[in-house]
Amino acid sequence: MNRSAYYVGDQTFVVKEADPVPPGPGQVRIEVAYTGICGTDLHIAHGAMDQRVQRPAVIGHEMSGRIAELGAGVEGHRVGDPVTVMPLDWCGDCPACRAGHTHICHRLNFVGIDSPGAMQQSWTVPARILVPLPEGLSLAHAALVEPTAVAVHDVRRSRLAAGEHAVVIGAGPVGLLIGTVARTTGAQVTVLELDPRRRQLAADLGLSAVDPATVDVAGYVHEVTGGAGAEVVYEVSGSAAGVRTATDLLAVRGRLVVVAIHPAPREVDLHRIFWRELEVIGVRVYERADYVEAVRLVHGGQVPVDRLISRIVPLTEVAQAFEALATGGDVKVLIDCGGDA
Amino acid sequence: MNRSAYYVGDQTFVVKEADPVPPGPGQVRIEVAYTGICGTDLHIAHGAMDQRVQRPAVIGHEMSGRIAELGAGVEGHRVGDPVTVMPLDWCGDCPACRAGHTHICHRLNFVGIDSPGAMQQSWTVPARILVPLPEGLSLAHAALVEPTAVAVHDVRRSRLAAGEHAVVIGAGPVGLLIGTVARTTGAQVTVLELDPRRRQLAADLGLSAVDPATVDVAGYVHEVTGGAGAEVVYEVSGSAAGVRTATDLLAVRGRLVVVAIHPAPREVDLHRIFWRELEVIGVRVYERADYVEAVRLVHGGQVPVDRLISRIVPLTEVAQAFEALATGGDVKVLIDCGGDA
Ligand SMILES: [Zn+2]
Ligand SMILES: [Zn+2]
Repeated sequence: MNRSAYYVGDQTFVVKEADPVPPGPGQVRIEVAYTGICGTDLHIAHGAMDQRVQRPAVIGHEMSGRIAELGAGVEGHRVGDPVTVMPLDWCGDCPACRAGHTHICHRLNFVGIDSPGAMQQSWTVPARILVPLPEGLSLAHAALVEPTAVAVHDVRRSRLAAGEHAVVIGAGPVGLLIGTVARTTGAQVTVLELDPRRRQLAADLGLSAVDPATVDVAGYVHEVTGGAGAEVVYEVSGSAAGVRTATDLLAVRGRLVVVAIHPAPREVDLHRIFWRELEVIGVRVYERADYVEAVRLVHGGQVPVDRLISRIVPLTEVAQAFEALATGGDVKVLIDCGGDA
Repeated sequence: MNRSAYYVGDQTFVVKEADPVPPGPGQVRIEVAYTGICGTDLHIAHGAMDQRVQRPAVIGHEMSGRIAELGAGVEGHRVGDPVTVMPLDWCGDCPACRAGHTHICHRLNFVGIDSPGAMQQSWTVPARILVPLPEGLSLAHAALVEPTAVAVHDVRRSRLAAGEHAVVIGAGPVGLLIGTVARTTGAQVTVLELDPRRRQLAADLGLSAVDPATVDVAGYVHEVTGGAGAEVVYEVSGSAAGVRTATDLLAVRGRLVVVAIHPAPREVDLHRIFWRELEVIGVRVYERADYVEAVRLVHGGQVPVDRLISRIVPLTEVAQAFEALATGGDVKVLIDCGGDA
């Protein structure tokens, strides 16, 4: 049987059992090991995306597991292989796809939002969105490949290089992953975070963690960069203040990476963008190369994802897990879907 | 003698004669042929930059001429050589200069604003800011190398490529030059302009010229790009509406080039920047490679600067030239400084 957690609306989940979905041609069925809860999942659980998410819905897109069954015509995979899923399926025919940017397909199917996700024991998906995992990699750690791929994508798009200085505004899970991935380039990294617990975690991960409420951030960055400013700022806070701080901190030819989702247009200092020849770079999800690199970084330990996992709960307790996450304290909560046996 | 036009404040110029300034070591003295009036010069004449410009001031930085005298130690130049000047002098020691971005030096001397300019017969400048001109190039046309270099810089920073679609918002002299330079890459170019005379000039130059007050621009760009949107938009209007239009028109991975100076922060649709992975690229003046390319394009006729020169006036009538330009109708006015004999 396949046990699944269904989001039915207004922070309510129902766990039910049904027959597994047999894989069709080109599909595989996965026994899911772990599924992480991300900020988007929290949004969904709070009803903020009810117009987009068809209920009852199995959500979740940060996962790991092993292949349980192959559909007709699937090659290059075997039953038992450890895998994760890049949860993007694309049309292949829109202007974005034709230009090679399938991850921003005009008709993107974000698997786990627009179609069933991984908060279940048994998950059937197209084989083309599988990403193989090395045998030695913990499946619990592998559930963080997806958010790590976000960070890899953001750092790659920023063209951050060794010897440069990067500032990360906001030290939630994505900000912390960006900080640790950014460090692997050989850049210096400073994290700005108001919350003392998150700041402590950033410091524990070896990042310079600064409280922007008590430290003159512009003066600090001026000092540590010899007056130049930061080459890259990652705006992960989603706040108007974050955008203002970002343009203020950037060096000549610096890059502001817009990671957070800003629900409203923000005032941007276009004069400074002109004056210092700054760039603002939009980033969205990841591409396959980012996923492959994320697997490598998690497996090699350069990105210590174990430090971000604050608890693992059984699938039957998914509602409590969402509640705990919403009320704070946790960084990353994984749901144990049973496939790590 | 050296006849010079001095800006003394509040739209007032005084023409006076004095001894030419002999070139010091590493300097040259130029007999100026033509000096163009640009938007910044107009700003200065209207008093908007009186805090920065020390009066009485000889302004002007779009010019052509011939070398009249060499200072000690100047090599690679001869008396009589046709030249223009890249009017940027840099400190060599600030973080921007050390990073190789001397055109955005933290202590930039914009020659003609921060130090004496070219609205005079005889102009003495550092040899290192000279740019040689080919003998066959009209000195009147060569006075437009400077704004052409702005356009070359902007197009280069945008990474516009053959087969792409570019939109230019605003068809003043800089917008028209960007349009014609953009076209040399093999891209399709659409110019948006409210003013019917400017729109007509854009059309006369062979650019698609659209009136955004009467045409549904988003629908138009959607149609001509097969639903993709424009790969590049150059914002040359300096208006809040221009910024809004720009983000609306861009394709996935499109680039918004901030050419105009926006005096106030502007609301920018950061959600769309995220959603389509857009880039915003600040551009300021030019680098030497842009100047060299601008000389090539003007000399080769790919950028028909002669179509932009609406009148040439003697140095003694500089005040009237500024007045005529401010009241409209003219595109580019050149001052004949006497050196094209
Ligand atoms: Zn598509
Ligand atoms: Zn400098």
